Amino acid sequence: MRFHTRKWVKPEDLNANETLFGGRLLAWIDEEAALYSIIQLESKKVVTKYMSEINFMSTAVKGDIIEIGIEVVKFGKSSLTLNCEVRNKMTRETIVTVDNIIMVNLGVDGKPASHGKTKIEYVKDRLAAES
Amino acid sequence: MRFHTRKWVKPEDLNANETLFGGRLLAWIDEEAALYSIIQLESKKVVTKYMSEINFMSTAVKGDIIEIGIEVVKFGKSSLTLNCEVRNKMTRETIVTVDNIIMVNLGVDGKPASHGKTKIEYVKDRLAAES
Amino acid sequence: MRFHTRKWVKPEDLNANETLFGGRLLAWIDEEAALYSIIQLESKKVVTKYMSEINFMSTAVKGDIIEIGIEVVKFGKSSLTLNCEVRNKMTRETIVTVDNIIMVNLGVDGKPASHGKTKIEYVKDRLAAES
Amino acid sequence: MRFHTRKWVKPEDLNANETLFGGRLLAWIDEEAALYSIIQLESKKVVTKYMSEINFMSTAVKGDIIEIGIEVVKFGKSSLTLNCEVRNKMTRETIVTVDNIIMVNLGVDGKPASHGKTKIEYVKDRLAAES
Amino acid sequence: MRFHTRKWVKPEDLNANETLFGGRLLAWIDEEAALYSIIQLESKKVVTKYMSEINFMSTAVKGDIIEIGIEVVKFGKSSLTLNCEVRNKMTRETIVTVDNIIMVNLGVDGKPASHGKTKIEYVKDRLAAES
Amino acid sequence: MRFHTRKWVKPEDLNANETLFGGRLLAWIDEEAALYSIIQLESKKVVTKYMSEINFMSTAVKGDIIEIGIEVVKFGKSSLTLNCEVRNKMTRETIVTVDNIIMVNLGVDGKPASHGKTKIEYVKDRLAAES
Repeated sequence: MRFHTRKWVKPEDLNANETLFGGRLLAWIDEEAALYSIIQLESKKVVTKYMSEINFMSTAVKGDIIEIGIEVVKFGKSSLTLNCEVRNKMTRETIVTVDNIIMVNLGVDGKPASHGKTKIEYVKDRLAAES
Repeated sequence: MRFHTRKWVKPEDLNANETLFGGRLLAWIDEEAALYSIIQLESKKVVTKYMSEINFMSTAVKGDIIEIGIEVVKFGKSSLTLNCEVRNKMTRETIVTVDNIIMVNLGVDGKPASHGKTKIEYVKDRLAAES
Repeated sequence: MRFHTRKWVKPEDLNANETLFGGRLLAWIDEEAALYSIIQLESKKVVTKYMSEINFMSTAVKGDIIEIGIEVVKFGKSSLTLNCEVRNKMTRETIVTVDNIIMVNLGVDGKPASHGKTKIEYVKDRLAAES
Repeated sequence: MRFHTRKWVKPEDLNANETLFGGRLLAWIDEEAALYSIIQLESKKVVTKYMSEINFMSTAVKGDIIEIGIEVVKFGKSSLTLNCEVRNKMTRETIVTVDNIIMVNLGVDGKPASHGKTKIEYVKDRLAAES
Repeated sequence: MRFHTRKWVKPEDLNANETLFGGRLLAWIDEEAALYSIIQLESKKVVTKYMSEINFMSTAVKGDIIEIGIEVVKFGKSSLTLNCEVRNKMTRETIVTVDNIIMVNLGVDGKPASHGKTKIEYVKDRLAAES
Repeated sequence: MRFHTRKWVKPEDLNANETLFGGRLLAWIDEEAALYSIIQLESKKVVTKYMSEINFMSTAVKGDIIEIGIEVVKFGKSSLTLNCEVRNKMTRETIVTVDNIIMVNLGVDGKPASHGKTKIEYVKDRLAAES
């Protein structure tokens, strides 16, 4: 699993108990899954279809740094299934895990559309191939 | 299931495809589950422990009004399990469902603590009993 | 008066005195009045035209849950007049009241347009009548 | 009336009709009234107690610049009454007016406290007097 | 230098150290430079092209009021160069300075376009000239 | 240079011209510089002291994905100097560069304090050394 995006937990991210608001965390996960899919599928029209169960294993407090990891589980015909883990950057303690996030590629008609991808690609390879 | 909180989908709630950002929706659900639990358990220190799988069945667009429904599944010793549905207020089309959201009551030491509740209560009854 | 939408007061909702920021509260009231009007008038193009005097009777602090109540005062030809009360969900103490909020229905030309409604309707009745 | 604070209307400030969200405007007014009072009363603990009726006379769209004007109506013993107008910076068209906004100075006990001010003061004069 | 826009530092504006988040401050400066340029150039399509070095000289804490000052350095053919200072409203202590912010006027093709302005103008004079 | 954090440009991130709001971009850069410094210096009390000139070389539009790269320029006694580049994830086109961002470590007295670091460290090595 590769961890890219990092967040600094600020007062605006806290719930009334002064721990990281779970809803904020879910929003960060959803954004990361969406942008990861957009990169892999080379399609800007990708939506979240399904998330498997979510375990909140620990929390974070103001000033903590967290990082979000994404891993591909499966390339479907019009979908992409991802696995996600959020952890504390400094201690590597797991904060939350989601085993399966299914993202779906949509066509111009708004219906699921084949994306033609079958494996992970890297932007640098794409750019090298183009030139 | 009782539907209380309503949201008006505004530009700030949209993803880059101009449909309701899934992460925003999850944040709304988490806040509703938290405040519902705080009301029922009469405890301000309640955290989200678990969400079962989440199905995104339809979406919403700018100007739509959505409503969030919560139903109690089970009162545990230190937990409360909720069922949640979000739907379009005007068409009643389901947008997302989450069968089980487990909220946990914490004590002053930050560990799960018995909440002493076993059934749904209404604030008006509590206030009547007090006076 | 019916109370629907609920809010959990989080750090991002506070002013520099650590009480609920009045401006946030006014924004919540305005959104609730707008969405209530959209539901009743079955029109997405509704704007706030007027608010009568606003009394801030008590405040809220971090972790409080508030609920927003709306009641119809009058159906005009192109307008809808609402009465609003915000109160603490747990104690029912009134936080703020606004006796008259006038919402206006606009036509495609952006000018006030007759909405054709004369009494409160419920979505379930509308949907039953349609089928 | 002196106009100080200016805002650039961005997508995040719009309602679902793509005009300036009234709630956002009310939040801007409340913040301006609060900070103006803090400056005049030389007290950080100032709260909004009352707003007289609010007339929404015109609106603003994305890209507009608005400015917020404040004028003192009256210095009370523990209060300060302000008059507010928001207008379009380029056309000077009035967007909203609020004749009376009553701000109250609070003591350490959270109750209204005398502020000792009777007329408008300027920060530069205060600083000159100090040195 | 003229100081117009004022901000009240609220919990949502703080970093994890409970001082004013530098990123928030930079966003406020950029908005002020943009709206000042839009007013002067009478063009809504203005973008930030360059900022000279930024010195963070002091900070602000919750409840502080800051004000943002802008001064014109130079009118270019398609650009406008501004000087900016942010200071504490009550103490006049400088928080941050940016000597040169270059804003560029864009044409409908998105390329730099001549704005035809050579000196500071006031809206009241423009409106007087029109009538 | 290593690129970690990624952002999906959403409607709330746009200016009134519907391109990425420069102020939002600066806020993202400042947060990334802060969290990178916190990781390297193993200190939560780190503040932005200085940014060298900022060139806005291209922009981004709704739906674009950007990534933020950070590189260490120099370890000072109480400071850390960073170099930052933001680019479009898909095209690698540079959006903005900042050659020197100076972050300062503060002691409990709020004054610059020696951080004792002289070279880049990785969290996995630290954790391995501990166990």
